[in-house]
Amino acid sequence: MSDLFRLTIEDAADLLARREISAVELTSAHLDRIATHDTRLNSFITVTADHALAQARAADNELARGARRSPLHGIPIALKDLYDTAGVRTTAGATFFAERMPDVDARAVTLLYQAGAVLLGKLNMHEWALGVTNINPHYGPSRNPWDTSRITGGSSGGAAAALAAGLCMGALGSDTGGSIRIPASLCGIVGFKPTFGRVSLQGVVPLSWNLDHAGPMARTVTDAALLLQAIAGYDPDDPVSVAAPVDDLLASIDAGVGGWRIALADDAHFGNADAEVLASVHRAAGVFEELGARVERVDLGRGQDAAQMNALMTTSDAAAFHRDRLRAHPEQFGADVRMRLERGAAFTSTEYILARRFQSEWRRQLERLFEQFDVLLTPTTPITALPIEGLDSVEAARQLTRCTAPFNLAGLPALSAPCGMSAAGLPIGLQIVAAPWREAHVLRAGKAFERATSWHRQTPPGW
Amino acid sequence: MSDLFRLTIEDAADLLARREISAVELTSAHLDRIATHDTRLNSFITVTADHALAQARAADNELARGARRSPLHGIPIALKDLYDTAGVRTTAGATFFAERMPDVDARAVTLLYQAGAVLLGKLNMHEWALGVTNINPHYGPSRNPWDTSRITGGSSGGAAAALAAGLCMGALGSDTGGSIRIPASLCGIVGFKPTFGRVSLQGVVPLSWNLDHAGPMARTVTDAALLLQAIAGYDPDDPVSVAAPVDDLLASIDAGVGGWRIALADDAHFGNADAEVLASVHRAAGVFEELGARVERVDLGRGQDAAQMNALMTTSDAAAFHRDRLRAHPEQFGADVRMRLERGAAFTSTEYILARRFQSEWRRQLERLFEQFDVLLTPTTPITALPIEGLDSVEAARQLTRCTAPFNLAGLPALSAPCGMSAAGLPIGLQIVAAPWREAHVLRAGKAFERATSWHRQTPPGW
Repeated sequence: MSDLFRLTIEDAADLLARREISAVELTSAHLDRIATHDTRLNSFITVTADHALAQARAADNELARGARRSPLHGIPIALKDLYDTAGVRTTAGATFFAERMPDVDARAVTLLYQAGAVLLGKLNMHEWALGVTNINPHYGPSRNPWDTSRITGGSSGGAAAALAAGLCMGALGSDTGGSIRIPASLCGIVGFKPTFGRVSLQGVVPLSWNLDHAGPMARTVTDAALLLQAIAGYDPDDPVSVAAPVDDLLASIDAGVGGWRIALADDAHFGNADAEVLASVHRAAGVFEELGARVERVDLGRGQDAAQMNALMTTSDAAAFHRDRLRAHPEQFGADVRMRLERGAAFTSTEYILARRFQSEWRRQLERLFEQFDVLLTPTTPITALPIEGLDSVEAARQLTRCTAPFNLAGLPALSAPCGMSAAGLPIGLQIVAAPWREAHVLRAGKAFERATSWHRQTPPGW
Repeated sequence: MSDLFRLTIEDAADLLARREISAVELTSAHLDRIATHDTRLNSFITVTADHALAQARAADNELARGARRSPLHGIPIALKDLYDTAGVRTTAGATFFAERMPDVDARAVTLLYQAGAVLLGKLNMHEWALGVTNINPHYGPSRNPWDTSRITGGSSGGAAAALAAGLCMGALGSDTGGSIRIPASLCGIVGFKPTFGRVSLQGVVPLSWNLDHAGPMARTVTDAALLLQAIAGYDPDDPVSVAAPVDDLLASIDAGVGGWRIALADDAHFGNADAEVLASVHRAAGVFEELGARVERVDLGRGQDAAQMNALMTTSDAAAFHRDRLRAHPEQFGADVRMRLERGAAFTSTEYILARRFQSEWRRQLERLFEQFDVLLTPTTPITALPIEGLDSVEAARQLTRCTAPFNLAGLPALSAPCGMSAAGLPIGLQIVAAPWREAHVLRAGKAFERATSWHRQTPPGW
């Protein structure tokens, strides 16, 4: 089987369970892909080949004994390089941490290992996860497999590139203003930011204590669900983790959207979105109607203020976390990140407090929206992947976070799934949002859409 | 019956239900008390005599028809003057609002009216509720019935004085760093700050959007429970209200503490507390042991940092809320309040964010404590009521909030109940704290203690 790297987690899990393929074969196939292709993509900062093969062998031994841990048993995944990994350097995309070697795994990593997953390596990202378009000055940009002259979007850009190009089967990213969903949209994969507090942030290098969300990235909605199921749950060691019950995310994933009420955000919410993005999202809404849902346009009110408040809080939260480094070694930050941190540090407590008050009100406004609707649809990004050359990173970030950041501020579960292709051959993403803790709802809508279309099956030409 | 003003709500409710007394009699008795005695106490800013008598007549008419709304039907209460009351001025203790006439009632007020309560008037408080000892420069200090040369403590000081002197049967206060519990402690009554988000703050003039708690004040634990039962519950119009189920607070209030594990905070936590305060609290712990509980000493760790962080957040939250007034009319603030607001406005976003992070960690630390214990005991205040004359309000505030403010930061339910008397004849308060949403637990412990002792039956000499 030469195309192991094209398998979904779901399919590979079956083949592994039936012992038609081995974890070592699957892992080796991906390590080969990385060795051959990642010079073009720069999606990994660190490849953990020996570690991966040792884990794969152990996984095979367990399977041989009939001890299958979960559907992730033997599945090769990778981690955005801000998840702590014991004995494997964890850079957070920064020079400060270039040689940082954590002693213990992040909680989510421990949970993936307990589920039997195999770690291929640590994925490229924007410096300290701050920003969604800036080029990492220390580790270089990751490149979009659909057009390697273009950005992946970020900050979990390496993950999206690696998934689109078949260099890993699943990944964990993190999302503070769109950092899972934006690269998912620009690279044509699935990214899922769960409810705030759903997945432990213990051992994940922070960007914002108030807006960070850990979550899965994959090539299908079901694969994202399998990953999330493994890592979701309360963790007393993360002070913002919430003790909410975790649903069986797979139980109703195929139940469809018949009879659902679905909100479609007004075009005005998306600013000057590309016409082909709007057309794709409108077609997606039509698909949901064909599937038996009733779709209604809604006005998201202060959604654009929400994106701005999210940016204010992200930069000031980051400035608080980095205050000692910023004072002692400002020169070790990239120019772009330093400028943002300095701007963040300059906000007064009053500005921050008013943003937080806005956050409470915005969250309440959306909770009320979701009393009327099962899910909300928006584009994930109003534009497709931009060229790396000549990028205006500030303006691009403003555009790219426009639809995603409001749902960080509200802490709601939000998924991006492929929903079209631009004339230039670049992926377009659909965002599906639901009320707090209704991850199962989001996945069910995403899966219904995926089954009715074939966008997730498109692969970048030449990969 | 000449001593109607000495009745508890519980007893008066029975007499009203049996029609042995009327709401008009009960209300008139309290209006007479106010007219006769409040010149000495200054506990009311506004007395709503006509309004009260009209409500009382309506209540009697309903009772005559057999339509009893709740145990509060016909009970005369009063409100700290930051609860909006339609058509009744609501000053928040400030000159800015000296003539402010709200159009609608605060949600909690609506709920009390729906329960049949009668409004006697609006109670004196510290200016904008900021501070616990400062003398209100606009409306003058309320005075402690146990010694009118002494402070009531605040900011809900008028409420505590009025209850101790029999000028009302119950009251609503608000508590951001101890403003319900501190005056309850210093005036020998019961004050209960419920869990953050438990009682709607809609229509309550804010001090801190992050730390404000609305709650009841009364002369017994059962009376506090009756008031809280009427006002507790989710309110979508308050963006920080939480949709947690509300227990029947009376159902288990008499069930005792047999077999409970009770934590007693280490003396070190209380700073240089008065020896007689410590002795009273230790005796209270002994009472709980006699009632069948196991009492263990615990180290509250960073409790004192928690009080400091609470003060930082309170002043900066208040500065954010008052920013326009502070810019336009600084001279209309009292000197003390203006100084605090200016200090609050000077905090950076970084300082505020680090305080919030501490808040998350502190809350989690206490959640873990309450996995081991049913309730926690501390003194409410380490000292008894200070003289008004020559008060060092900054130092006094620091001392008085030492035991209460940490539980605002954590948002936990915390009650103060009388537990002793100093040699000088001043009341001492016991604080009882529990895990989030466990108001019923706190009340049950408070009631068990009250039944076993008689401190709540003491009345100020001459009143």
